[in-house]
Amino acid sequence: MRIPKHVAIIPDGNRRWANESGLEKHQGYEHGLNPGVEALRLAKTYGIEELTYYGFTTDNCKRPPVQVKAFVDACIDAINLIKNEDVRLLVVGNTQSPMFPSELLPYTKERVAFGTGTTKVNFLVNYGWEWDLGHMHTDTTNRHTIMDCLCSKDISRIDLIIRWGGRNRLSGLLPVQSVYADFYTLDEMWPEFSKDQFSRAIEWYNKQDVTLGG
Amino acid sequence: MRIPKHVAIIPDGNRRWANESGLEKHQGYEHGLNPGVEALRLAKTYGIEELTYYGFTTDNCKRPPVQVKAFVDACIDAINLIKNEDVRLLVVGNTQSPMFPSELLPYTKERVAFGTGTTKVNFLVNYGWEWDLGHMHTDTTNRHTIMDCLCSKDISRIDLIIRWGGRNRLSGLLPVQSVYADFYTLDEMWPEFSKDQFSRAIEWYNKQDVTLGG
Repeated sequence: MRIPKHVAIIPDGNRRWANESGLEKHQGYEHGLNPGVEALRLAKTYGIEELTYYGFTTDNCKRPPVQVKAFVDACIDAINLIKNEDVRLLVVGNTQSPMFPSELLPYTKERVAFGTGTTKVNFLVNYGWEWDLGHMHTDTTNRHTIMDCLCSKDISRIDLIIRWGGRNRLSGLLPVQSVYADFYTLDEMWPEFSKDQFSRAIEWYNKQDVTLGG
Repeated sequence: MRIPKHVAIIPDGNRRWANESGLEKHQGYEHGLNPGVEALRLAKTYGIEELTYYGFTTDNCKRPPVQVKAFVDACIDAINLIKNEDVRLLVVGNTQSPMFPSELLPYTKERVAFGTGTTKVNFLVNYGWEWDLGHMHTDTTNRHTIMDCLCSKDISRIDLIIRWGGRNRLSGLLPVQSVYADFYTLDEMWPEFSKDQFSRAIEWYNKQDVTLGG
């Protein structure tokens, strides 16, 4: 079976799920914590080397304050859970903005090893594509040199993007690392995560042919 | 009905269609010419303001020479057909490379008006994402300023990407303009184009909610 080296997860649908479940919208995010841990454990069993979570974006911060607080808190909680899982963690996002939670600053400079695991985990926090591309100085068409100019340069090319919540769009996720990614969208909301959904995505990826645009 | 302002078309599957039709792979491309004109006429009836065709990429040029010649010729023929359709045409791609067909140079400097139409048509020829991002000098998170640094700066943000040929991936298409695009994939191969397929994509788009990441 052809396993993607690097999988990105867009955990969408928390607010819609909360609405449908009789909760307030902002209450949906905390129900996305366990799915995140489950996805990581599954990724390890498949031998996936790198996993990126789309935490929250600069765009998301335009939402009502009660929601912003809820998803920022959920990201901090998620990262605390992930730290128990034998990973090499990197948090990537705009740390210069007041929206960036100071609790997460220690994981933004370089990858931090927890336990003995080798799985790389990237967690995007206060990420924006315009922040990512905002300090580029290139005069080359060399792909590696271009990728080295990104603020997200420590995140590698993505093979498979799995999005929950039914929308077939990137919503600004790592535009350069995503250029050749296969994109799998699930109709289920992120808090409805099940192992079977993740496996469906991996099995679907196995049937795609990888051409890198060639 | 909510109509996308800017639609991009990824006309994939020409070679697979040729194979299935008992032709040589390179013979598929010429069967993609009429679909291109039909899509343009349909786009006009829907009131779509801007249409981008993914012609060929620097990646594609790694293919066997007989195929490269066939898709370069098909792009030249396609643009000659499009010129009869009352459009404002711009050809975007790396003109510095020997792969760029000199016949198309006149349409690369600025948008050229044919007839009285207002529909903008962008045709990507010898396009590469690394070429597009290869001359960026930014020290800002202002989105408009960043987009102005792209080699493809005359192409606006994309609302809807329609891809034929069953693959759910961008394959390097305009990474910055695509950040918020909704992505609709059809299983049919591009030479099997029908109006109904295009309409399905527009109707699907109408049911998506546009948040621009918010």
